Amino acid sequence: MRPVAILGIGQTRIDEHWDRSLRDLAVEAIVNALHDAGRQSVEGLFVGNMMAGILSAQNNLGPLVADWAGLRTGDAVRVDAACASGAAALRAALMAVASGELDSALAVGVEKMTDRPMPEVTAALATAADADYEVDMGVSFVGLNALIMRRYMYEYGWRHADFAPFAVNAHANAVDNPYARLRHPITAEDFERSPMIATPINLLDASPVGDGAAAVYLVPADSLRGAGHIRVLASAAATDTLAVHHRQDALFLTAACKSAQEAYRQAGLAPQDIDLFELHDAFTIMSALSLEACGFAERGQGVRLALEGEITPGGRIPICTRGGLKARGHPVGATALYQVVEVVQQLRGEAGRTQVPEARIGMTQNIGGSGATIITHILGKA
Amino acid sequence: MRPVAILGIGQTRIDEHWDRSLRDLAVEAIVNALHDAGRQSVEGLFVGNMMAGILSAQNNLGPLVADWAGLRTGDAVRVDAACASGAAALRAALMAVASGELDSALAVGVEKMTDRPMPEVTAALATAADADYEVDMGVSFVGLNALIMRRYMYEYGWRHADFAPFAVNAHANAVDNPYARLRHPITAEDFERSPMIATPINLLDASPVGDGAAAVYLVPADSLRGAGHIRVLASAAATDTLAVHHRQDALFLTAACKSAQEAYRQAGLAPQDIDLFELHDAFTIMSALSLEACGFAERGQGVRLALEGEITPGGRIPICTRGGLKARGHPVGATALYQVVEVVQQLRGEAGRTQVPEARIGMTQNIGGSGATIITHILGKA
Repeated sequence: MRPVAILGIGQTRIDEHWDRSLRDLAVEAIVNALHDAGRQSVEGLFVGNMMAGILSAQNNLGPLVADWAGLRTGDAVRVDAACASGAAALRAALMAVASGELDSALAVGVEKMTDRPMPEVTAALATAADADYEVDMGVSFVGLNALIMRRYMYEYGWRHADFAPFAVNAHANAVDNPYARLRHPITAEDFERSPMIATPINLLDASPVGDGAAAVYLVPADSLRGAGHIRVLASAAATDTLAVHHRQDALFLTAACKSAQEAYRQAGLAPQDIDLFELHDAFTIMSALSLEACGFAERGQGVRLALEGEITPGGRIPICTRGGLKARGHPVGATALYQVVEVVQQLRGEAGRTQVPEARIGMTQNIGGSGATIITHILGKA
Repeated sequence: MRPVAILGIGQTRIDEHWDRSLRDLAVEAIVNALHDAGRQSVEGLFVGNMMAGILSAQNNLGPLVADWAGLRTGDAVRVDAACASGAAALRAALMAVASGELDSALAVGVEKMTDRPMPEVTAALATAADADYEVDMGVSFVGLNALIMRRYMYEYGWRHADFAPFAVNAHANAVDNPYARLRHPITAEDFERSPMIATPINLLDASPVGDGAAAVYLVPADSLRGAGHIRVLASAAATDTLAVHHRQDALFLTAACKSAQEAYRQAGLAPQDIDLFELHDAFTIMSALSLEACGFAERGQGVRLALEGEITPGGRIPICTRGGLKARGHPVGATALYQVVEVVQQLRGEAGRTQVPEARIGMTQNIGGSGATIITHILGKA
C-alpha cells in the first residue's frame, strides 16, 4: 500500500444548529477542507454518521452530501461503527487511496443531534449498545459507562473527585478553540458540584451532544513535494464484543490495546514517541481506560496521570488539546474527524494557546460502543 | 492492487422470520460462507445493512454480528448506501483485501424488515430518498419509481402489460431456488390483474420485502492454486443526485452507465461478453432502465428485450436467474450479496434448472435510492 497524506482539513463549530440541516453542516466542513487542500473535486466521499436514519429520517448520506457539495464522485457511501463511525469512514477512505483505487478521497463526519427531544436522542445513542441484551433490560448508554466507572473506582480505590482533572483539562483547552461547543473553564469544585446523571457519572464527567461536521482530504503522499505535509503513519481497527457483559474484563479496553499496538507497529513507534493523544473522552472513565490500554499508564493508574498534570498541553502526554469530546463536543459520527483535524492543527503549529511544543507525532483514537469498535490513527509531519 | 477471489458463499432463505433476529440471520449466512470456504476465522467483517437503526433499534452491527458469529476481527463495520448497502460493503471488503491490508474478509448483507408494521417499513424505506425535498412532500419510495415508470411509458409508448415478462421471468426462475421468498410461477394475466400500489406500479411490478442475509468470503486470488475458482474481475461505484428531480434526465440511469462502463474497462470486457446479469429489479421499470444504461438495449428498448424473451436463462442476456429482487426477494441491505452468491452458483454450474449454459462471466448491479448509488461487479471463472 502507498503512503497517504492529509492535504486539507475543515470543520464547523459544534453547537445547537437549529437553523441548519445535516447536509448544510457536512457541506460546510467539506468546502473548508477543499479550500484548505486547494482542490475543487474529489474521487470518493466517505461519510461517517451514526444516527441520521433515526433522528433525521435520512439514510443514503453519500449521494445526499455529494450532491449538496456539488461533487459527483464515484464512491459515496456512509460508514457506521456507532461513535467510531468517523474513524471507520476515514479508514475506508484511507484504504481506497492507499490501495491505488482512488487518487483522492474525502472523509467527512457529520451528526445532527439537537433537532429532536432529548429522550429520542438518548434512545438513538443506545443503538450503539446491544439492543436485545443491554438496552431492552433498561440500561442506557451512560448507564453502561456508569457501571464500568463504579467498578473501576471499587477495584482501584479512586474517589469520584480524582477524575476532575480530565474535565478541567478539556474545558481549559477548549476556551480558545472557536469550533468548540463549551468554551468556559471549569474548576475541580464545579466538577464535584455538578448534577448527577447516572451515578457515579455526573454532568461534567460526560461529553455534550451537538451538531457538527469535520472533514479531511486525502491524497497519495508521493503526489506532494517537499517537507511539511501531514502523513497518516498508521491506521488500525480492533473489535471487542458489543455487549459489555460478554467481555472477559470490563475494566480493560482490549480493542484499544490491540488497535494501538497495531498502530505502533505500523508506524514503528512506541507510546513515548507520541507527542499528543486525542482520545475518546465520552466520559472521564473512558480517558483513564484509554490511557491505560494504549500504554501510557499502568492498569488503574490512568487517573494518577491526570492528577499529576501529565495530560495538559505541557505534560508528558497531552490529551484533548482542543477540548476533547468533553468540551469541544461529541457530535457522534463526526468526532473522529474533529480529532484528526485537531492533530493536524497541532502538527502544523496552528493550535494557538494550547499548542503542544514541537509536536511532530499525534495519535487519535475513536471508540464505538462501550469499547466494541476501536480505531487508532497516528499522524506525523513529513 | 492484487486480484481477489470469492472462496465461499452463504445465504439464508428469505422469508418472514419472526422467530429469528437480525443477528441470527447474519450469522447463518456467515457460517454457511465459512463452511463453503473451509475457513474458521476471518480478518475483517463488512456488514451491508440499511434499516437496523430504525427497525431494530440497533446500530453498530459490525461488533454485534462478529461477536455472535464467534469471530474476533480487526475491522467490523457497517456500510450504508441504502438499497446498495450490500454492494458497498462488498466493495469495502474488496478494497481491504485488494490493497493488501487484509488477507481475508467477509462481506455480509442482512436486513430484518418484517417485525414491524408496514407503515414503519415504508417510512424506513423512504429514508433512501431525500427526506427534506422528496419524502416531506409526501412521496414514498414506490411513488418515486411510479413517476419514473409513468414518464417512461409516455415517452416510449409502452403499455403496462409490456412489462409483464420481467415479473414472469423472475417468478419462473425462483421456483427451484430454495432460498427464494416467492416460489410460485405467475402469468402475464396475473401480472395485469394484480392490485395497484402506486399507478402504474402494481403488486407484481414490485419486489417484496423480507428478512434475509447472504455472505461471501474473500481472499487474494494468488493464494488459490489451480483453476475453477471465482474471481472478482471488476468493482465500480458511481453516484448520481439523491433527489430524482435534481437529475438532468430521470429516464436514464447515469450512475448505472458510468459504473458499468468502468467495470467493463476494468475487466476488459463488453456487454456481449456477459453471460448473465443479476440486475436490481426492485420494480419492473428498473430492469428496463438498467438494461438500457448498461449497454444491453437502446434507450426505451429494454422492454422489447424482455418481450422478445432474451432475458430468460436461455436468452441473450439472462437476468434474475434465481428469481431476482422480484421473486427471490429484496431484503434491502442483503440484496447485493444474494446477487453475488447467485452469480457464483451460476459460474460453478450449481444453478439447477435455471443454469445458464456455459456461464463464465456474470455481472451484478445494485442500486441505492432511485438511481443515486449504483455499484457494479463482474465475476469470472478462473
